[in-house]
Amino acid sequence: MFSYMRKILRINLSNKKVSCEPLKDEIIKKFIGGRGFGAWILWSELPPKVNALGSENKMVISAGPLAGTKAQGAHRLMVQFKSPLTGTYFRSVCGGFFAAEMKSAGYDALIIEGRGEKPTYIYIHDESLEFRDASEISGMTTDATREFLYDETDRKARMLIIGPAGERLVKFAAIVTDNLRTASRGGGGAVMGSKNLKAIVIKGSKKPEIYDEKTFNDAVKEQVEKIKGSPGIESLRNFGTSMAVYPEYIGGCCPSYNYRQEELQNIEAFKPENIAGYIVKHYGCFGCMVRCGKIFKISKGPYAGFVGDMPEYETLWSFGVNLGNTNIESIIYANMLADLYGLDTISCGVAIGFAMELYEKGIIGKSETDGLHLRWGDPDIIPELVRRIALRIGIGNLLAEGVREAAKVIGRGAEKYAMHIKGLELPGHDPRRAKSRGLSLLTSPIGASHTIGGFVGEERGLPYKGKHIDPFTTGGKGEMTKETQCEHALIETGVWCLFVNMSAELYSKLLYAATGIEEFKDPKTLLICGERILNLERAFNVREGFNGSYDKMPERITKEPIPRSAPSKGQVFEEEVLLKDYYRACKWDERGIPTKEKLVELGLEDVAQKLNL
Amino acid sequence: MFSYMRKILRINLSNKKVSCEPLKDEIIKKFIGGRGFGAWILWSELPPKVNALGSENKMVISAGPLAGTKAQGAHRLMVQFKSPLTGTYFRSVCGGFFAAEMKSAGYDALIIEGRGEKPTYIYIHDESLEFRDASEISGMTTDATREFLYDETDRKARMLIIGPAGERLVKFAAIVTDNLRTASRGGGGAVMGSKNLKAIVIKGSKKPEIYDEKTFNDAVKEQVEKIKGSPGIESLRNFGTSMAVYPEYIGGCCPSYNYRQEELQNIEAFKPENIAGYIVKHYGCFGCMVRCGKIFKISKGPYAGFVGDMPEYETLWSFGVNLGNTNIESIIYANMLADLYGLDTISCGVAIGFAMELYEKGIIGKSETDGLHLRWGDPDIIPELVRRIALRIGIGNLLAEGVREAAKVIGRGAEKYAMHIKGLELPGHDPRRAKSRGLSLLTSPIGASHTIGGFVGEERGLPYKGKHIDPFTTGGKGEMTKETQCEHALIETGVWCLFVNMSAELYSKLLYAATGIEEFKDPKTLLICGERILNLERAFNVREGFNGSYDKMPERITKEPIPRSAPSKGQVFEEEVLLKDYYRACKWDERGIPTKEKLVELGLEDVAQKLNL
Repeated sequence: MFSYMRKILRINLSNKKVSCEPLKDEIIKKFIGGRGFGAWILWSELPPKVNALGSENKMVISAGPLAGTKAQGAHRLMVQFKSPLTGTYFRSVCGGFFAAEMKSAGYDALIIEGRGEKPTYIYIHDESLEFRDASEISGMTTDATREFLYDETDRKARMLIIGPAGERLVKFAAIVTDNLRTASRGGGGAVMGSKNLKAIVIKGSKKPEIYDEKTFNDAVKEQVEKIKGSPGIESLRNFGTSMAVYPEYIGGCCPSYNYRQEELQNIEAFKPENIAGYIVKHYGCFGCMVRCGKIFKISKGPYAGFVGDMPEYETLWSFGVNLGNTNIESIIYANMLADLYGLDTISCGVAIGFAMELYEKGIIGKSETDGLHLRWGDPDIIPELVRRIALRIGIGNLLAEGVREAAKVIGRGAEKYAMHIKGLELPGHDPRRAKSRGLSLLTSPIGASHTIGGFVGEERGLPYKGKHIDPFTTGGKGEMTKETQCEHALIETGVWCLFVNMSAELYSKLLYAATGIEEFKDPKTLLICGERILNLERAFNVREGFNGSYDKMPERITKEPIPRSAPSKGQVFEEEVLLKDYYRACKWDERGIPTKEKLVELGLEDVAQKLNL
Repeated sequence: MFSYMRKILRINLSNKKVSCEPLKDEIIKKFIGGRGFGAWILWSELPPKVNALGSENKMVISAGPLAGTKAQGAHRLMVQFKSPLTGTYFRSVCGGFFAAEMKSAGYDALIIEGRGEKPTYIYIHDESLEFRDASEISGMTTDATREFLYDETDRKARMLIIGPAGERLVKFAAIVTDNLRTASRGGGGAVMGSKNLKAIVIKGSKKPEIYDEKTFNDAVKEQVEKIKGSPGIESLRNFGTSMAVYPEYIGGCCPSYNYRQEELQNIEAFKPENIAGYIVKHYGCFGCMVRCGKIFKISKGPYAGFVGDMPEYETLWSFGVNLGNTNIESIIYANMLADLYGLDTISCGVAIGFAMELYEKGIIGKSETDGLHLRWGDPDIIPELVRRIALRIGIGNLLAEGVREAAKVIGRGAEKYAMHIKGLELPGHDPRRAKSRGLSLLTSPIGASHTIGGFVGEERGLPYKGKHIDPFTTGGKGEMTKETQCEHALIETGVWCLFVNMSAELYSKLLYAATGIEEFKDPKTLLICGERILNLERAFNVREGFNGSYDKMPERITKEPIPRSAPSKGQVFEEEVLLKDYYRACKWDERGIPTKEKLVELGLEDVAQKLNL
């Protein structure tokens, strides 16, 4: 039980009650931490069908068991809630320093409940907690909020902040940390906004204890060596994820024009050597040697002078390739605005692409776009739409609902161009290009998330369990997808960064050395925890009314073969066969519902019972 | 000699030589500090007719003798150079913390010479000085530059920074401090830019010594009581200068539409109670109880979420009333951009008004405005033009030269609408409304500066030397203007803030107690120092080729009676009679050149000699 703080802080904004609850052994052993805790708490405590933006929704904010230790990349933060964007269970994850600071303050997790009567922020300093008036900082951009909060709390405090988008309940509003890392997907910012919670500020003074220092330090050394030798690490250090756009485009994975995958002129703008020219500084999250965080500077064009967090691959895609926009400065600037307003850039870019395609097709006209001419690739219109979405101005107010809901309002066949799964907008990885990856997007408990199952690498030349994988075949992809999803669920109990390539074996070694818990000695037991979490998340969604019929690709992905010249040319996503194979691998029934047998096997008898299986 | 640090640091960017020179008794006694030092150094060291943007130009950065002490509001910073905007001697002044920190580091003044081969910043830490590579921060906005420099130096260091405008040699680029106070007028930012000097960072650990602590502390107490009782102080505390726009407009002083003074619809937007709604925080400069600095927050409209330094009266005028713009958020946002880019908002707003009037009159068309429709009062076009000016894009590149030069390039009678004196754009105080004030704008050694002679108050109901002054009469205004200019020159040796209403008597008391210098015991001696400085500045300009023919109002001010209904209705500025009266009061000849007699009387024989008088 070393390295756990053994405390969960329950914070109710409605009645301002705070209680510190012990973290039970049983929960630790079953769910380890991070994503496991949140999945368990949401399943156990959220009544079915609560309004995601109502005071009944809860937000679980948790660290992994190794957060704050010397382990590399074990310090990401897990934020879980019922999503106002998808209506499903949701988990959003971010880097930075908050998780380690939360451990320093003495907590493994926070549970946020209720709704503040007035705009509020929470200041936690070790054992003390204050509900403070946030009317002064209310409405402010994230960076301005941070500066005000530094003055009012502690310059070394760590924070989760929402911007104007979260306050306006934009359905894909992000939660932004003090150093601009974000828990961006699924509308966590809107959940905070709905709770009148502008920020959580935390400062601590404790250190997690280690059960067996020597073994732990040796395992960390092993980890460091492994990271040093892992492929792509130098590239991540030098360029972050931003260098991936060009090769991913060439490989036919990075989709252009709202997934139409037509040729994009001037794609050379995304070549790593060009992207690198914008980077002026490198930084890392707590306890991470990779330091993939980059700071940009714009030196030319209309946005010259601005400096901020360099967009990741996904944003260079969503505001760039996805919109036919090869003006890097416009992407960087739009991303900066999204950080200031607090917006998920994937959903935001996809919503803009959706609007551009509808405008092109004549489904919407200038009367619906506030007079804007929504041309593909217009570098000025993109930051402007980011602003309108964040502030819910004009067409932005509609797009702020996400593409699924916006398509419903528009009607006229708009749904065909709404690129989402379960309401979550697709990221920059074409499911047609890598079938296991696509299957993972399709079946993920939170909708089209690219970080909840198999990495692209496994279908792009890197071996998987020692074998080369053909990205285009369907055979064996069900099993592979299930396995990588379970691995990811385990990794996210960590809460490990995906860039340190943690394995179940090394995790087990580190975890046992840090905690002394016998059950963690066997990597197989850990992998069962991963599967347990994935099944519990699925059960949550089933209880909400989502069965396999919601495992549904946009029509374009299943029916339109990729037209452009790339290795993926001519591919579609074979939804039916892949899905059937996956359900079988999961031991779920043909409706995509976990079987009683599987749930019992995973020690989730009570879950099976609640689902009347 | 207590309270002086007795050191001037000479810094040459060309050869990277640094020398620390003793501050001579004679200079202290003749020029006291601040503005006096810089005027003396520029006169003594600058060869006539140097290129203001050449490496031969120098920049003198100085503190007053009481900077860093307990005296209230004695900590402003004086920055002097030959101006690239006017071609004259120039002094620009700003609040903040730099002057006090410079004293802490052990210096009364810095002299910046030469030109860095590459972008450079200077880091001074007590006796150490480093020339550091600024290529990383080069091109960045001022706020981003500050954050980078905090990381590279000391979080408590103080800074002078230029933004993209200064680097692009915009003729009215400002110098911006770490807390966004600016030495904005006259293009000091361009001078730094021309020297490849991105920033000066300073940190010190010393304290100025006081000759007679008890008497000094008593005098400070007296000052504090005086400030507490002074009229308008509560208003400055609560609203800063921003509350003055509405009453000044009603009084006929705050000119609309590029000084046309036509009625402005919706002027109520500037009422203090509306302006106050944007203020979320108050702050002060070093050692000042007034705390007139304000932070704004925008809660609605397209700029919602932004937070920054609240515009002062002058900016609410220049981007507001002056442009027919009553959208307060647009003004605040444009001001924020000007702070980030490093621009003087007065010159910038006047340049925009100039362009709007030319466009309205058909003197320039869309082919010259980058296709922009330059409508009076368009709230979106103003921030856009600020950006284009700062970055020298399209029409911004022309306006970046200032209205005098832009009018020359345009021709076609444009000069008629260029509101400047000696190349410096007029501030928001109509010379027709207060004749002494107007005369001071007209004759100031730096062009149309509103802070270098009589305060508006003296012609707006506040008594001057115990008497009520009629603002519209011309009689006696020559003497009054000369006197207030000399007083201001004295106050700016302080370098006192104008808002603490320092008198020669109290200054003398504080100065003697702080320094023990016998000559400072008599306020009359101090006032002679003020007159000495004013004459020396005039002499500098004469040597540059500027005689009284450059004391010239824009035609509109002397020929167009104020049309709108206000106390100033029907007024023009009687240039000839006022000017003659002023020269006589100054004992300057009819060409506006100081007489040998006057210079000798002021102990400036050598100056008379150099001017061949």
